[in-house]
Formats: sequence, structure tokens, C-alpha cells
Amino acid sequence: MCIIAISRVCGAKRKHKTFNGLKNQVLFMDHEHHQGHHPAHHHHGGEFEARIAACNVPEPVRTYLTRCAHFHSAPAPGLLIGAFMVDYALELLNATPDDKLFAVSETPKCLPDAAQVIAHATTGNGRLRVVPIGRFAITMNRVSTEKTVDGFRVYVDMEKIKQFPIIDAWFSNSPVFSKHAQGNALQEQIFIAGRQLLSYEKVRVPVTLKEQWKPVKCPTCGETVPDYMVVDGKCGACGPMKYYEKI
Amino acid sequence: MCIIAISRVCGAKRKHKTFNGLKNQVLFMDHEHHQGHHPAHHHHGGEFEARIAACNVPEPVRTYLTRCAHFHSAPAPGLLIGAFMVDYALELLNATPDDKLFAVSETPKCLPDAAQVIAHATTGNGRLRVVPIGRFAITMNRVSTEKTVDGFRVYVDMEKIKQFPIIDAWFSNSPVFSKHAQGNALQEQIFIAGRQLLSYEKVRVPVTLKEQWKPVKCPTCGETVPDYMVVDGKCGACGPMKYYEKI
Ligand SMILES: [Zn+2]
Ligand SMILES: [Zn+2]
Repeated sequence: MCIIAISRVCGAKRKHKTFNGLKNQVLFMDHEHHQGHHPAHHHHGGEFEARIAACNVPEPVRTYLTRCAHFHSAPAPGLLIGAFMVDYALELLNATPDDKLFAVSETPKCLPDAAQVIAHATTGNGRLRVVPIGRFAITMNRVSTEKTVDGFRVYVDMEKIKQFPIIDAWFSNSPVFSKHAQGNALQEQIFIAGRQLLSYEKVRVPVTLKEQWKPVKCPTCGETVPDYMVVDGKCGACGPMKYYEKI
Repeated sequence: MCIIAISRVCGAKRKHKTFNGLKNQVLFMDHEHHQGHHPAHHHHGGEFEARIAACNVPEPVRTYLTRCAHFHSAPAPGLLIGAFMVDYALELLNATPDDKLFAVSETPKCLPDAAQVIAHATTGNGRLRVVPIGRFAITMNRVSTEKTVDGFRVYVDMEKIKQFPIIDAWFSNSPVFSKHAQGNALQEQIFIAGRQLLSYEKVRVPVTLKEQWKPVKCPTCGETVPDYMVVDGKCGACGPMKYYEKI
């Protein structure tokens, strides 16, 4: 399959769309969107959705992409790839987003949000874990009462990604990639590539049980915290985890 | 203000509602909802929304509560309190959910999801940080190019919570609290209490800058990871962070 040709088809289709009357604009890229002063939800202009449609992204991923971008407040490339990854993992698990699912993301960047939005494996409900290894990979599994559980690890395949030169350049943080000149082209290549840059393997992961706890009073500040969070006889805020000063 | 009387008013109102024809059911409580085999989205039966309405929770919190419960896949008490906390922090910052906001949650339980859903400070976009101190508190601030930034820390006040005996019993993990008998009453008390169990303080937090990175190849597995994630010359998966085995 010649990705350049497909990309042209996608580009050609776009010219027949009105894009809600908006001029083209460079959408926020992953390497930049965590800093700076742009307003949130820029993708709501309709251009982003039009591009998804022009590239014929099928449902349910089409809806996932829009919901992820809204939650994340930018259509970051890693988030968009992540939506395809989580959709793939759901299919491998033969699961729906309403099933109780767990996720381990091997990067803190973007990918965790796809698992949160699509599969309800969230930071706050304890079903998402981030293991900062630095690979763009996610392992998903169903709930289990056993000590281990089988799941699927879906990852960006460094061989397959070579078929998609713009994604490859962005992914490897190459100086060749220009986010301003190639932002829209990168999105299109992601939408067209879909699962073609992904691989998976079947894996076994340990099941972590919910911690039982009792409240204890910190002798330093008098605040009540769960016993398992006490460090050296003190609460974390009186110990190494103080992150703020009162003003 | 006598909370018992108000609670009765709220309970009385509920009897005049039809609750979409559903029987009362015990909704999932925080202490349990991370384990077990319940289907997600039980709160979609309408009873949860009806209870919010019966307790006269004002907008925008009313909408926040429903959106948070959907995302989290259960209307956990800590999540509901969290929605009031994030709403309060937004007001203190004179901010809207479309502004670029950062959050530090002092607990991994429930509260982070309120910041994610309402304020788009997410795990994957780098604007949410969890510091596992064990206090039910969240600090929120605006974006800044300085080295520190002022924000507001909103927390559950252990003095004020005493006005609300069911919340107090649940919050302190007391054996007196029965989730099956008191689940609905706990929700109602949370809806009625709103900000009355919260306090805040103005704080200063350090601004963390985005890390620059280059890809490096792990000598053990050959995978490419960001240089700042290399541990002892190896990627995390070849080091201490291996969390799965292939099967
Ligand atoms: Zn302390
Ligand atoms: Zn390695």
C-alpha cells in the first residue's frame, strides 16, 4: 500500500469540503501543547472533525477521536494514535467500553487519556496505571479475582512506522519534522494509518488488590491520612512530598 | 443550619419524584467500586440525576456531577465532593473550564477525575499531578512562565465535616458507616453540603517545565525511549519497571 498516494486522495477530498468556513490553521502538536498560552478546545472549529471524516476514519474510532481531543483540550498526535490503540485493545479483549477494564500506559504522554476517555480506566478510579518506561505502548485487561490476569499489550511498532514518514519523523522527535508546516499532514497520516503502525502481544500482568486502610493522625501537622501513606512516621506533606508553600 | 432538617426536606422531595420508574438501588460507593464485577455506568438509571435535582444542586456543578460519574464509571462519594472542590477552585481563580489550568491532587482516589473532567487538567496532557499524601485536597493554578505560580488549595476541612455525620463516618472509614444502608443518604448529604465542608488557602507552587528529549536506543532490548527515562543505562522495561510477561 502506497501511503503517499492515499494521503493525496485524502488531501484531495479535503478540498471539496467547506471546513465550516474556517481557514486552515496549524493544530497543536504534542511537542508543544503542554506549554504556551493557547486557548483550550481549538479543535472545536470543525476542521479537525472534517479531516477525520475526509480520511474516512470508521466508527467508533471517529467518535473516540473527537471525545479524546475535547478531554485532552488538544488533538495531540500521540492522543490520536492512542485512540486507535485503545480501540484495538478493546477488540482484542472482545470488550466494550462499558466493561470493567484496566490499563497500564508505558508513557505519561497523551496515551493515558485515550484509555481514560474510551475505556473508563481512569487515574481516579484506580484502573489506570502509568509506568514511565517511555515506550508508546498500552496493556489492557479485564477485571480478575486471580493473582495474575492475561491481557493485550498494543504498541507502536518501530518497523511498521517507517511506512509513514511524517509520523516517523514526529515520533522520533526528528528535527526534520516541522509541526507548523506538517501538523495537518501528520494528523491525516495518523487517520489513514490507523492500526497499520501498531502491533500487539499477549501478556500476563499481576492483579493489584485494593488496599485496606485506617485513618491515622500525623504527629507533626495533626492531619488525618490513611495509614499506608505514612512515611517515616509522618504524613507525606510533612515529609518529602510537600509541594506548596502557604502565602 | 440544621443539616438533618435539610436532609429530610431533600428526602421528602424525592418521594414526589418518579425516578424514571426505577426501584431504589444502592449506588456504588468509593470503598468498593474499584473492585468487584458490577457493570459500569449504573448511575445512568436516572436515580442519580434525580437525586441531584431533588437536592437542588445548582449549575454548573449539577452537570459536572453527571459528567464526572460517567467518566469515572461510578458516582463515588469522593468524586462528587471533588466536583464541588474543583468548581470552588475555578471560582477562586476566576477561571472557566476553557482556561489552561493545572491541578495537584493530594490523593490518587477519585479527586483527580474531577480535575480531569471539569478543568481538562489530565494525566495525559501533563497538567494533572498526583502527590500521594493522602489528604483530600487539590491545588489549582493557571499557566505561568515564571518559576513559581500562585494558586488555591481547596481541602476537606476536618472541623467542618463534623456537621455532616454520614459524610464524616464515610470519610474516616468508620465501621459505623454502612454503604448499603446509607449510600443514598451519603450522596444526598454531599449534594446538600456542597462547599460547606470545604476550606481553602492561597498557596505558591513551583512551575515544572517541559522536558526536552532525544531518542536513545536501549542496549538491552533495542527499543527507543526518551533519554531522560533511561535508568542505569537501560530502558525502564529492562530495569525495575517491567510489569508484564509475554505469554
Ligand atoms: Zn503531617
Ligand atoms: Zn530495554
